Amino acid sequence: MSSASGSKHKIVVTRNLGPDVMPILQDRDDVDLVLWPEDRACDRDWLLQNATGAIALVIMVSDKVNAELLNAAGPSLRAVSTMSVGYEHVDVKELAKRGVALGYTPDVLTEAVADICIMLALIAGRNVKETSTLVTEGKWPNFSWSPFLFCGSQLSAPNPSVNRTAGFIGFGRIAKATLSRLVPFGFTHCVYAANPNSTKPPSSSAAADSSLAQQFGLRSVEKVDLGLVAERSDVVFVLAPGGPETYHVVDEAFLRKMKKTAVLVNAARGTLVDSDALAKVLREGGIWAAGLDVVEGEPKVSADHPLVKEPRCFILPHIGSATNETRVDMASLAARNALAAALGQPLPCALPLGG
Amino acid sequence: MSSASGSKHKIVVTRNLGPDVMPILQDRDDVDLVLWPEDRACDRDWLLQNATGAIALVIMVSDKVNAELLNAAGPSLRAVSTMSVGYEHVDVKELAKRGVALGYTPDVLTEAVADICIMLALIAGRNVKETSTLVTEGKWPNFSWSPFLFCGSQLSAPNPSVNRTAGFIGFGRIAKATLSRLVPFGFTHCVYAANPNSTKPPSSSAAADSSLAQQFGLRSVEKVDLGLVAERSDVVFVLAPGGPETYHVVDEAFLRKMKKTAVLVNAARGTLVDSDALAKVLREGGIWAAGLDVVEGEPKVSADHPLVKEPRCFILPHIGSATNETRVDMASLAARNALAAALGQPLPCALPLGG
Repeated sequence: MSSASGSKHKIVVTRNLGPDVMPILQDRDDVDLVLWPEDRACDRDWLLQNATGAIALVIMVSDKVNAELLNAAGPSLRAVSTMSVGYEHVDVKELAKRGVALGYTPDVLTEAVADICIMLALIAGRNVKETSTLVTEGKWPNFSWSPFLFCGSQLSAPNPSVNRTAGFIGFGRIAKATLSRLVPFGFTHCVYAANPNSTKPPSSSAAADSSLAQQFGLRSVEKVDLGLVAERSDVVFVLAPGGPETYHVVDEAFLRKMKKTAVLVNAARGTLVDSDALAKVLREGGIWAAGLDVVEGEPKVSADHPLVKEPRCFILPHIGSATNETRVDMASLAARNALAAALGQPLPCALPLGG
Repeated sequence: MSSASGSKHKIVVTRNLGPDVMPILQDRDDVDLVLWPEDRACDRDWLLQNATGAIALVIMVSDKVNAELLNAAGPSLRAVSTMSVGYEHVDVKELAKRGVALGYTPDVLTEAVADICIMLALIAGRNVKETSTLVTEGKWPNFSWSPFLFCGSQLSAPNPSVNRTAGFIGFGRIAKATLSRLVPFGFTHCVYAANPNSTKPPSSSAAADSSLAQQFGLRSVEKVDLGLVAERSDVVFVLAPGGPETYHVVDEAFLRKMKKTAVLVNAARGTLVDSDALAKVLREGGIWAAGLDVVEGEPKVSADHPLVKEPRCFILPHIGSATNETRVDMASLAARNALAAALGQPLPCALPLGG
């Protein structure tokens, strides 16, 4: 891999990253910036054509990174930098084979996504779809106060004698940030099933769990089988990566094991949850409700999708990390990952790739 | 006030409190229970007629307690027990004049309402009205991912270098339970304006604030003028009682002092916020958004109410305490307050009344 000294470093960016971030690349004399000019996902043909000779690509989740694209870029390519924490759109084996680094943007979106997790757990428990809709439709005047009208499932422990258990599928940064937020809601226990798709060696251990429990003032943090996550939790957060290894990890059998008062939150990838099974179990009252930021097959989710029609299923269009501050941070990190690669420096945030 | 020994204690209840709670009164031989039989707010005429000779009344927020009702009940009445934490429907001076106690239900609903406060702050910040509606209407397929699409105002601090300030109007139990929940969201400061309507002597002091700050790991907790609550806060929670003293305490002047990225949450009473001013300031982008569990004039809030039409105003139909667990606890406390009064025992939870 030759250094590009003397000539400019070609960096291809598949989306305008806005006025706070583009100057990181635009203002440099040593960068030849090639930017997809439109305000929509980058055309594949344009990307294949323009990638040639690039030293780094800044891409979005909508851009598939595979042998085809890597071949089109050629041997000059040092890094692919995705503006996302997920990387199921990237063929990491092909990258590893060629010695191309993968930059991504974990950490910077942790807090924004943990916020969405808490919000969806509350929304699902408190019948927000039904109650907010009746206000919007002008039906509030038809309802007079009544002791048990609109009553939901309470996320917090109503008093200190009550236990609350949080369950996680995938127990990385976002899960821990979500768990920390649940502590003042009176949560007492945490169970989790490790991410079966993790590329990292298992770092969890009983000692680490015990230390986390102590840090958060919980009675226990425990790694358990998936079935026990379903059985014990008052709220289950799906926070593992997508991909074939986690496909439909929440299926009908899982949902049938959950408490009838429990809620399911998915803020990871739609493929982890079987939509038909969830709609069926919700319809039959098998669980209290669901709050989803992601749905399998999104954005092709129509008004007659079984989950959209379900009154106890609240759906957001994948806005987990969508805050101004966080998206600027993500875009900035994606730009800096690409720039570092171009300059031959270590990437600020690279995914460790197997050989 | 004569003891009712030898005869049964007449307790009038204006709403069926459900199978978990009614036995508290129904199962006693010494209680003559008179229950409004219908599943709607109690008719005034029925209440006035049946109150005669009662030793205690269990009432709802829809039942006005004034001289008329107290006269109808007569000198046997020892206590009015409202299934609510608010008591603006009760003429406390008339009660005090007659030596009739007022039972109410604070504390038991603190956690449920604090949950709603956090939920509304998140919902308002994250453009949930717009984004959830487009999913329900089947418009998600029309939107492809884009770096700044749907971006909201982040409740949590995106990283430890960022400050976040919570503001409160009224700083009682619910406010403190809400503040405790904000700590792991990265909140660093708290400002509050005391409840101008408080019947209690001011218990707040710089020492108590400092101790609270230390307990929560905040840099400061500070009692300030109302204008500074508006100016400094990233989120303002309205949590003071209703009534004339707090009428429109959030007016256009207050809203104009707020940050453009800040959100307003009202989970107290609708009368504290000027609806027209809020709609105007939201429309003009003066603040980011609002989340309301209460609206002045509720439930008469039609589909063309200026706040219902506002895309950045999310409204719930007063479900702050509406969880199964909390409503059972409230109803149970209301029943036990009435029973205690009937038996000549101290009420489990009475409002201290001035003479």
